[in-house]
Parts: sequence; structure tokens; C-alpha cells
Amino acid sequence: METLSIGQEIIAACEQLGRHSDDPDGLTVAYLSPAHRAVAAELQEAMAAAGLTVTVDALGNVLGRLACGRTGARTLITGSHFDTVRNGGRFDGRLGIVLPIALARHLTETGERLPFDLEVIAFAEEEGLRYASTFLGSSPLVGQFDASVLERSDASGVRMRDAMKDAGLDPDGIAGLRRDPERLLGYYEVHIEQGPVLLQAGEALGVVTSIAGGVRHSCRVIGTAGHAGTVPMPLRHDAGTAAAEMVLALETRCRAAEGVAVVGTAGRFEVVRGATNVIPGECRFTIDLRAAENGPRDRSLADVLQACREIAARRGVGFESELTMNVPATPCTPAWVDALAAAVTALGLPARRMPSGAGHDAMMMGRAMPMAMLFVRCGNGGVSHSPQETMSAADAGQAAAATLGFWRSLGRSVRDLPAGPRE
Amino acid sequence: METLSIGQEIIAACEQLGRHSDDPDGLTVAYLSPAHRAVAAELQEAMAAAGLTVTVDALGNVLGRLACGRTGARTLITGSHFDTVRNGGRFDGRLGIVLPIALARHLTETGERLPFDLEVIAFAEEEGLRYASTFLGSSPLVGQFDASVLERSDASGVRMRDAMKDAGLDPDGIAGLRRDPERLLGYYEVHIEQGPVLLQAGEALGVVTSIAGGVRHSCRVIGTAGHAGTVPMPLRHDAGTAAAEMVLALETRCRAAEGVAVVGTAGRFEVVRGATNVIPGECRFTIDLRAAENGPRDRSLADVLQACREIAARRGVGFESELTMNVPATPCTPAWVDALAAAVTALGLPARRMPSGAGHDAMMMGRAMPMAMLFVRCGNGGVSHSPQETMSAADAGQAAAATLGFWRSLGRSVRDLPAGPRE
Repeated sequence: METLSIGQEIIAACEQLGRHSDDPDGLTVAYLSPAHRAVAAELQEAMAAAGLTVTVDALGNVLGRLACGRTGARTLITGSHFDTVRNGGRFDGRLGIVLPIALARHLTETGERLPFDLEVIAFAEEEGLRYASTFLGSSPLVGQFDASVLERSDASGVRMRDAMKDAGLDPDGIAGLRRDPERLLGYYEVHIEQGPVLLQAGEALGVVTSIAGGVRHSCRVIGTAGHAGTVPMPLRHDAGTAAAEMVLALETRCRAAEGVAVVGTAGRFEVVRGATNVIPGECRFTIDLRAAENGPRDRSLADVLQACREIAARRGVGFESELTMNVPATPCTPAWVDALAAAVTALGLPARRMPSGAGHDAMMMGRAMPMAMLFVRCGNGGVSHSPQETMSAADAGQAAAATLGFWRSLGRSVRDLPAGPRE
Repeated sequence: METLSIGQEIIAACEQLGRHSDDPDGLTVAYLSPAHRAVAAELQEAMAAAGLTVTVDALGNVLGRLACGRTGARTLITGSHFDTVRNGGRFDGRLGIVLPIALARHLTETGERLPFDLEVIAFAEEEGLRYASTFLGSSPLVGQFDASVLERSDASGVRMRDAMKDAGLDPDGIAGLRRDPERLLGYYEVHIEQGPVLLQAGEALGVVTSIAGGVRHSCRVIGTAGHAGTVPMPLRHDAGTAAAEMVLALETRCRAAEGVAVVGTAGRFEVVRGATNVIPGECRFTIDLRAAENGPRDRSLADVLQACREIAARRGVGFESELTMNVPATPCTPAWVDALAAAVTALGLPARRMPSGAGHDAMMMGRAMPMAMLFVRCGNGGVSHSPQETMSAADAGQAAAATLGFWRSLGRSVRDLPAGPRE
């Protein structure tokens, strides 16, 4: 396999898919929008051209199957999502679809047979942009589909159920998408890092050890509004400066975390009904805390909330926080992590082991089966969820080579299904 | 004079005026709105009933004159504004109109003659709610009228010039409202404190020494947006936590000010396009700094901006600030301050001398003539610019008694105009 050449093919495929967008500027592809349907159609064509047998499931996921021809062979699922955030990047999600399609074409052309069936799944929805239905595409495969999302409406008042029917999909068929884990080897996903770690280290690839769990709180500080000119400093109960001290406490605690890295973000921060000449009476901010292990994350959260309460008490303001999300960390399968790291090392590359701070379809799939993830260096300072997201063809090619090496090593240890009735 | 009785009369008059509002809930009276015109009409009636000769000037100010009957007598102007902020208080501004009307009625009834003409002016606009035209009512009297505001439009697209014509006013007559300072004794204003200082001290009245000058900056912090899960803490350039550190630097600097008190407020603070799972890439906040003297205020501002620049440099983020307002402090006339303090002391009350953190019509009038201000205790924690603003009848009565004492003391030192042609 010519590594750089397949890398260029992968980059070109992402660029091609990136031409479809709901917005004329930037890249926005929401579930079942015209751009989304155009991308799905192109993916079907690309899969078919690569020798895969293509189907579209009840939810709109696009599946391409490369059967190995042996009865009793299990299936390795690999893939990622093709929807985007608003004004997103061209590689986020799509890399994990077009890379295995390129490899499937390579296998088809060279006649190499893996000892398992390969199934490339382009998940129709992971970002949750249109219906706040994160992991929509992968959830039914592992029995985690929440049917209530079908009744949600988008910003224009269109129910998901109706949008699906309009696209020729079958909402009532989603429950039947659950896979029998016995028939599966597991799930593997290639994804752009979406951060600066590999870029700063000067390394092309990273082997994911765990997908960080996230916990989020929505916080509210209640102070006393007042005239900015007439209330002396010692008599103030300023909700804004109290909240400022709290978000700095969050930052300080996360910076000081030892052992497992913890990241903490106050992504929203706003003085409610703020005016230049009024002492803030109310301030709201959010806490997002993540770590590759739940323990360090939860200890950090407890410390931060305790610090917030102490700051509030000292300043004579009220503090309320509400848990809005709590997703446990999902460790990758250790034997697969080792095998993937060995495949990277075999290319002469360092095999950095690192957590994934972002959630991925692998997080959902990993709840029911063995799972591994490969990260690829993100250019341009590591910026993602942005049109500035970039990746080099050389890195994409190395990721393809490492993936093929990992699949071959999986093949050496594969156990077929016992004989008997099967699908 | 029965102090408590006149206090009750003053409170009742403020309650009565407070029934007119542009909003059914709260108290909002914008320049020339239906509620504003209703208040103006009631003020004309009240002035006439108190024995004052009433006129309405080209701008909509309501003037009530109590002539002393001596040729060559100078005029003491006293008053305040009757417009409000959005959802404002019943005493802010109006107290300084209804109190002298009540005193004028008392003088008319008792036959007491002051040795100067008294002119009560109800200024039509000071808050700038509808046209951002702060001090509109008082500015033409001292030659500070900015005619360009006539061309401004309100939120509904109505030009001020047209709103004035619709109300029967004469925009082109405003320039002629300038008063000859030679004919004036000066300006005196009674105002609710709008802060908690007198309340906390347990004192009814305060003698204003200076009206604080305000300086405002609009600040912008430019960091690097990023995925909240994927960028390690040491690699972040978070605009939100940088701005949080800056507003705490503002608070710390003002708390530490020695000698002249300085108050600093970050009334607006917002992560631009903030999202829970995105590291803030941009944050905006405002700085409002005030002190009774310009020097301490300007030194505090310089220190705070320097601290912001140092924080920005250390964190690797950009910092920009833009001066949006710079009004110098206006000292009250020292001899008048002493006379007013003596009038308070004569009532058996402590005469606390204090700066005014808020701007008032007295600030504008004081640019052209002697000026003094009396503050009256604000109840309910000192909250103002709010429907929760309160004042006791006892305090209002003490304010009336102190005012009458001050006027009498002014009368003892009054000099008439030289003989000659006059208006």
C-alpha cells in the first residue's frame, strides 16, 4: 500500500464531502437536511465503488459491507459520523468513514482477504445539532436508542419522526437495528484528535486509552443588584465578581490535578441583564469537567463545588448548581489498545497513549463490545469544530497504514462463530 | 412647619405620580410617553395649587415660580427630573420636585417671604431611557444642549424632534432656554441617596460634597476557542478565565483605594457565543469607575488597565479596551455645603458629608452656578432604580425641614441684582 497516496485519497474524499453544507459559508450538515442527504448519497456511491455492499438502515445510517466469504465469520464494525456541528470541520467524523472505505477499496483491488467481515458504518447523527440527539446513529445498534427523541421538534417545528418519513426512512424500524454482540468482533474508529496534543508533541498518531466521561453543571449566583456609583465596595454583593472567582477556582483545581488529567471549562458565563452602571445581581455560568477516569473527575467536581459554596458564603451571595449531564468514562479494550499501539510502532512511529476528551460513537459502541480508537494529528493549532480544522495527507496515510496493520493483527486472533443457524 | 405631616404629603405625592407608567407592571416613564405627559400635567396642577406660576418650556420641563415680589431679586433654582429608568423607583428624581412644591405651598400658606425668587423645575429628561440623551432637561439651561440628539430615533424609529412636535413642544426654542447666571443664586437639589450608606449609618440625611465623575471602558479579551474535552489545561488560552481575573483585579484595586473612595464595577460580562463544551474564545466586559475626585479615579483606572494587560500577556490572550465615557467630578460649592450641613445640624441630626456616586441634574447645573445637594436615606437595603426603592415619611419631612433652613440661611446672605434693565 502506498501510504501517502492513500492519504491524499482520504483528504480528497473529505474535501469532496465538505462541499455540501446547509449554510453557504462554513460547513454545517444537520441530520436529514438537503446537504446531509447529498453526503449520504455520495457515501453510498463511494462505498459501492470500493466494492462494499451498501445498505441504508431505518435511521439513515449508511452501511457498507465487505464479506470475507467464510461462513461463521464475525464482523468488525468501523466507522464514524457524517453530520457536523454548526460551522464544523471537514475531518471530524468523516475521516473515520472515508479511511476504511479507502482501505476496503485497497483490499478489493489487491485481493487481500481479512478473516472477518468488515462493515463500514457512516453514522447519520452524532453531534445532535438539529434535535439535541447526541449519538443518535450508533445508539440503536447497542440497544440504547431513546424513542422519545422521535417526538422532538427542530427549530422550525419539524418533528424528527416526520423528517425521517419525509426522507423515506422508517422510524418504527429503528428498534430492530440492535446487533447481536456475539456476531461482532467489536468496534474500531479513526478520528481526528480535535486537540493540540499530538501537534505539540510532533507525532502523527495517538492510541486512545479511554473516552473521558463528562459531567456538567449549570450554575447560578445570586447577588444584590445596585447602582454602580452609589454602593461602596465593602457593602457590595456582586454576583459577577463572585462568579469570576468561582470559574478561576475551577481552572485552578483542574490545573492542579495530579495523575489523571482533568479538564474543566466554564464555556458560558454571563451577567444576567447586565448593564454598565449596575452592580451584577445575577450571574450564570456552566461547568464542564472531564477525565479519562471517573474518580479524579468526580473528586475535582466536589472540590470545585465546595470552593464555589465557600466563595458564596464569604461574599454573601447565593449559589445554586444543577447537574445537567453525567456520562461515565468508557475505557478502550486493553488488548485492542496494545494491538493498535503495536501496529503504530511497526510503522516506526511513536505510539502515544492518550485519553479522548471528546465523546465519540466509540463511546456508545464500546458499551456492548470490544472497542479501540485511533487519533490522527489535528493541524492549525489543534483547532476543531471549525472550518480551520486541517489534517495532512501524510498523517491520514499513516493512519490508514496503522489501521490495516491493526486489522491484520486482529485477524490473527480471530475466532469464528460456532456452527449453527445464523442470519 | 409640621415635619412629619409635610413628609407624608411628599411621600403621597410620589406615590400618586408613580401610578403613571409606560408598562403596566413596574414604573417606566420615558420622555414624552403618555405616562410622561400625564406626570407633567399632574405636576403643573400641583405647582399651581401650591401657589406657583407655572410654565412649560420648549423642551417639556415644567417650571413653577414663586416670586418674592422684590425687584432685583435673584432666583434660586431647585428641582430634579420626573422621567425614570426602566422599572425604576418612585422617589428617584420626583422627590426633588415634590418636596420644594410642598415647601412652596407651606410658604404660600404661612405668608413667609424668602428674599429671592424660587423656581421649582421638574426636568423632563435626565435618565436617557428613550434617546440615550442623559441630562437632556437641564443641559440647555447652562448652554450645554447638544442639538444633534434631536435627530436621534427611539427604538420604534420616532425621531426626538418629531416626538417633541407631536407633544406640542418647540425643538427650535431649546437654544433660547439658556439662563443668565448673573440672575441666578444657584441650584439646589434634593435626591434619594440610591445607595446604602445613610441606611447603614442609621442617619436620615447626607450633605453631598461632590458628584463623582465616571469613566467607562468597554473591554474585549481574545483567546483561543477550543473543544472543552480535548485541550489540556496548560495549552489553553481561555478568554473567559482571563476576563474573570481582570474583573477581580478591578474589584481588588477599588477595595484597596485609600483616602478618596473609588468604586469599580464590571456590570456587563459575557462570553461571546459561549457554549458549555467550548473553551471561550472571546469575552467582553465593561469597566465603570467613579470617585469624588478625578485623580484617585484616574490612578485606579491606569492600575486596572495595566493589570489587565499583564494578565493578558501572562495568559497569551489579547486585550483591547475602548474609552466610552469620561465625565469629570463636579464639586459642590463649599460655602453652600457648609450652610446645608448647618441646616441639618440645626435639626439635631448628624450632617454626614458624602460624595454622590451617581450623576444628577445638579452635575450639569453646577457647571454654571453655585450648587448644593441633599441626600435622603434610601430604605430597603439602599436599593434604587427598582420598584423596591422606598423612603420614610419621617426622613422626607426632615429633608423638607433642612431644605427650608438652608433656604433661609441663603436668604441671610443674598445680594440683589444691581438696578437696571431686566427681564
